Amino acid sequence: MKIAILGGTGDIGEGFALNWAENHHIRIGSRKADKAEAAAESYRDALAGQGMKGNILGFDNRTAAEGADVIILTVPHEHVSGVIDTVRPVLDRQIIISPVVPMTKAEYFEYNPPEEGSAAEEILEMLPEGTCVVAAYHTIASGRLCSLDPAFRCDVLICGDDRHSKDVVIDLTDEIECLRPLDAGPLAAARTIESLTPMLLNLAMLNDLKDPSIKIL
Amino acid sequence: MKIAILGGTGDIGEGFALNWAENHHIRIGSRKADKAEAAAESYRDALAGQGMKGNILGFDNRTAAEGADVIILTVPHEHVSGVIDTVRPVLDRQIIISPVVPMTKAEYFEYNPPEEGSAAEEILEMLPEGTCVVAAYHTIASGRLCSLDPAFRCDVLICGDDRHSKDVVIDLTDEIECLRPLDAGPLAAARTIESLTPMLLNLAMLNDLKDPSIKIL
Repeated sequence: MKIAILGGTGDIGEGFALNWAENHHIRIGSRKADKAEAAAESYRDALAGQGMKGNILGFDNRTAAEGADVIILTVPHEHVSGVIDTVRPVLDRQIIISPVVPMTKAEYFEYNPPEEGSAAEEILEMLPEGTCVVAAYHTIASGRLCSLDPAFRCDVLICGDDRHSKDVVIDLTDEIECLRPLDAGPLAAARTIESLTPMLLNLAMLNDLKDPSIKIL
Repeated sequence: MKIAILGGTGDIGEGFALNWAENHHIRIGSRKADKAEAAAESYRDALAGQGMKGNILGFDNRTAAEGADVIILTVPHEHVSGVIDTVRPVLDRQIIISPVVPMTKAEYFEYNPPEEGSAAEEILEMLPEGTCVVAAYHTIASGRLCSLDPAFRCDVLICGDDRHSKDVVIDLTDEIECLRPLDAGPLAAARTIESLTPMLLNLAMLNDLKDPSIKIL
C-alpha cells in the first residue's frame, strides 16, 4: 500500500514511517521537497541502524499525496486547510486519516473544536465528495511509537462513517505491534477522541506522567 | 467522614458503599427511605459475606445529605435537578461529587452536554454559592467496583476548580484498592471526561469488550 504522510517530518510521522516501511511504500510529504527527502533519508538510516530495510521517499506534499492509497494528515490544525488546498487537485478517493487535534494552552490544554464538531468532520467538509475520512492516532505518544519497543502496548481509537476505509485503518494499525486498534464508531465520535489529546497532556502535567497514552481494560 | 450516596440503591452506589464502609459512615439516599434502608441492609449483608463490617444506613435523599461531608450524585442526568431541589435546604458546604453523564442512545451512545458545557458545570450552577463540585467516577465499571477484586486496577479522572475538594476526592479514591486517582484539571475538563462514558459503551458494543474502563499508561 502507498501511504503518504503529509507533514511527515515530525516525530509522529517518523513513528509511522518506521513501523510501516517494511510492508508498505512510505511517501513523506512536506511543504518543501528537500526537507521531506532529508527526513526520509534519516528514517531509512534509523531503520538500517536496527538492521531493517524500508521503502521511504520524500516529496512535496502534493507529490506525496498523488497516487497514494492512504494519506495521513500529521499537520497542526492551523495548517490543515492550507495542506488540503495544496493536495486537492490530486485527490482521487484516497483514504484520509486525521489525527488532527485543535487545541490551545493557557493554564491547561483545552480542546477547541470547530463548528463542524471536530477537526475530522471539518476536514470531511473541505474534501471532494466521495473522499472518506477516518479519525485515529490522537492518543499515541510519538516517542513510544518511534522506539519500536514491543513491550509497550496501547490502544488506538478509530472512528469513521465508511466501513471499508475504517477497516483499512484498523488493519494498518494492527500491523504495528505496540498498537491495538479499537472501533470507536462513527466520525462524530471524533469530538470525544480528539479531546483525549489535551486530556492526556493535562494528566501528564498534573500527575507527572511521561508520554501518556490510553489502554481500555 | 460521612458520605451520602444519593440514588445509592443502584450498582455504582453499592460499589462505593462496599469499598468505603469500613472507614467511613455511608448514608444511602433514595426518593423513598424504605428502599434506601433495604439497600443498606443488603450492602451490610454483602460485606458480612466477605467477613467485613461496615457502617451503612439508608435514608430519604434529603436526610442522607443532611450532615454529610461529601455527597455523591449517583442519579441519572434527568433526575439530577429534582434531587438537588430536594436536598438544597440542607446543603451547607458539603463537597458534591458528580459522576453524572448526560447521554442518549440511537445507533450509538452519544454525549449530550447541557449548554453549561458539562453536567458537572450545570450542577454547579444549580447549587448555593460556595458549594464545590468535583467530577469523578465516570469510567468505572460498577460490576468491577462491587467485586472488591484487588487484581483489577483502573484509573479515575478527577476534575474540579477547588483544590481542597479535589484533594478530598483524590484521597477517597486512593483508599479503594482497585482505583488510581488522577488529577484531570479544572471542572471544565468534565466535558471530555463525561464523554468517556458513551465512548466506552460504544467501544464495548463494537469490540466485544466487557465492563470496559480506562488506564492511562
